[in-house]
Amino acid sequence: MTLTHDTIRAVRWRDGGLELLDQRKLPAEEIWLRLEEAGATAEAIRAMVVRGAPAIGITAAFGVVLAARQRFADSPGDWRQALEVDFERLAQSRPTAVNLFWALDRMRRRLADLDGDPFPTLLAEAQAIHDEDIAANRRMGELGAALIESGSSVLTHCNTGSLATGGYGTALGVIRSAWSAGKLKEVYADETRPWLQGSRLTAWELVKDRIPVRVQADGAAAWLMAQGKVDWVIVGSDRIAANGDVANKIGTYSTAVLARHHGVKFMVAAPISTVDPDMPSGAGIPIETRDPDEILSLGGQRVGAVGADAWNPVFDVTPAELVDAIVTEKGVVERPNREKMLRLLEV
Amino acid sequence: MTLTHDTIRAVRWRDGGLELLDQRKLPAEEIWLRLEEAGATAEAIRAMVVRGAPAIGITAAFGVVLAARQRFADSPGDWRQALEVDFERLAQSRPTAVNLFWALDRMRRRLADLDGDPFPTLLAEAQAIHDEDIAANRRMGELGAALIESGSSVLTHCNTGSLATGGYGTALGVIRSAWSAGKLKEVYADETRPWLQGSRLTAWELVKDRIPVRVQADGAAAWLMAQGKVDWVIVGSDRIAANGDVANKIGTYSTAVLARHHGVKFMVAAPISTVDPDMPSGAGIPIETRDPDEILSLGGQRVGAVGADAWNPVFDVTPAELVDAIVTEKGVVERPNREKMLRLLEV
Repeated sequence: MTLTHDTIRAVRWRDGGLELLDQRKLPAEEIWLRLEEAGATAEAIRAMVVRGAPAIGITAAFGVVLAARQRFADSPGDWRQALEVDFERLAQSRPTAVNLFWALDRMRRRLADLDGDPFPTLLAEAQAIHDEDIAANRRMGELGAALIESGSSVLTHCNTGSLATGGYGTALGVIRSAWSAGKLKEVYADETRPWLQGSRLTAWELVKDRIPVRVQADGAAAWLMAQGKVDWVIVGSDRIAANGDVANKIGTYSTAVLARHHGVKFMVAAPISTVDPDMPSGAGIPIETRDPDEILSLGGQRVGAVGADAWNPVFDVTPAELVDAIVTEKGVVERPNREKMLRLLEV
Repeated sequence: MTLTHDTIRAVRWRDGGLELLDQRKLPAEEIWLRLEEAGATAEAIRAMVVRGAPAIGITAAFGVVLAARQRFADSPGDWRQALEVDFERLAQSRPTAVNLFWALDRMRRRLADLDGDPFPTLLAEAQAIHDEDIAANRRMGELGAALIESGSSVLTHCNTGSLATGGYGTALGVIRSAWSAGKLKEVYADETRPWLQGSRLTAWELVKDRIPVRVQADGAAAWLMAQGKVDWVIVGSDRIAANGDVANKIGTYSTAVLARHHGVKFMVAAPISTVDPDMPSGAGIPIETRDPDEILSLGGQRVGAVGADAWNPVFDVTPAELVDAIVTEKGVVERPNREKMLRLLEV
């Protein structure tokens, strides 16, 4: 484990229940929440106990397991219809990440050929989704690290590591692999306002897994690049449109524009389940806007002036033409466009 | 006063002492600190009780007044030499803003022809610096607002208002003037990490002076521009090199690159005292780096992971070629370069 700098898991099924490492409390406290039913699972996703597109998908899959167990116990003859309410509730927890809908669809497909108690089959499916995600991340780590030259320095945005996935991470998985291969000189992390996924979560993961990291204000990324201190920006994604446009944490698009201006390469690492073939371009991706209070308050304290309004879109869309490489477990697409993305999906 | 949306002053001389509105406590508390000597004044600048290049200059000028009063009282025959220690201490409080050095130089020049008690002459000079700064800001407000078309929306970074100057503001003065003239549709403010000058100070000023403002995470500026919601980025400066390169709050350079990418205009408003004719280009401007704790903690609470490092440069340099207009009280320079800047200085 130490060799690959990979010791953290944030979603686990244990003793018949779902357990989540509460990401709202990190890094100050490591608290596991135990969930026994679907409503609480949807609420945990909405409230960001768990976040990160792949981790949300895995959590939702386990949410279906919890829901089916309850519905079947309540009404063994008529549980399927009742389960629709739970699917709906889970689907409405967050709008932007497509992995959520992908995982729910996959769980629903397993329902079709079910007879009797759905629990064992659905649990196995959710566990498969979880295991496959970790395997996909390791593969992306290899493929992404292969693109990076030795002695490079990288900048990442938000948290895309073990906390955001089944484990290992997407963009942070690439960074783990590249670090393990001895290729990286420096790892920089945007603090990632407003939720501070960078300074709270990415820094916590990397410190724990012994990869040195330097955090900075998001606004300092351009200045860092101007000094030639970044070779690659590496980020994850919540949804990739069929033309290669990339939705990701607010601020990602900013780093992509800045990277292009400075001749810095821009890599997106995401499992193939993040690619939404039904979404022709980024223009149609729903962008979640959250409470202005996430901007105007910090750690429960009001920091912004009373009476000020705030604009809090929590994702943005980076057009494909600013992306140098999309790395998935099925392969790498350089300079993505619709044709190349379709070819990837057909692999 | 209401008509010009200008009701705030943060530096004042009262009853024989210097009073500063403590900007570390805003917007939660409005606390005035009273200073009676130069050491405390230098410390107040260092600790950011007062910040903003012009306000730092004015404060330092009053610091010289306090110092001279003390030195003359202590030793009427030999006060000039002792005063050098105070000049030195004030000069070392912050490195980047040139207005500090400009104000100290101007105060020093008044010493040359002094006879007897220096206090009245120096106080008059400091008050003149203060009054002239406000007048310069009003003039910049007119000149800058004239560049803005009716119905425009603007984005500003950091705080450049009454709190950052003698009063009215540089970039925020332009916004005050343009708002008063009915030209502005929306005013957006970057929250401006790490010190949150935007959400804490700019929002406080604008709410108080009845100009609606919407705050956002710094990383959201690119996304805002992509949606065509910004016509002008308007910022201040801590030092402008002789070729038109502009040092300002970290994150400014980022907004300049993003503005150019999106066809948004970029305006710098600063008094002529911000132009440093002895600095050939931005490359030589000393950039202050502050405590990593400003990134990793917030409001006294640790937010970043323990063990993580942080990079905290608090200024950056925007090259002249990304600037559409530099607005000073002596006139406007569009598309600045060395030649045009020299011409401005000779006016």
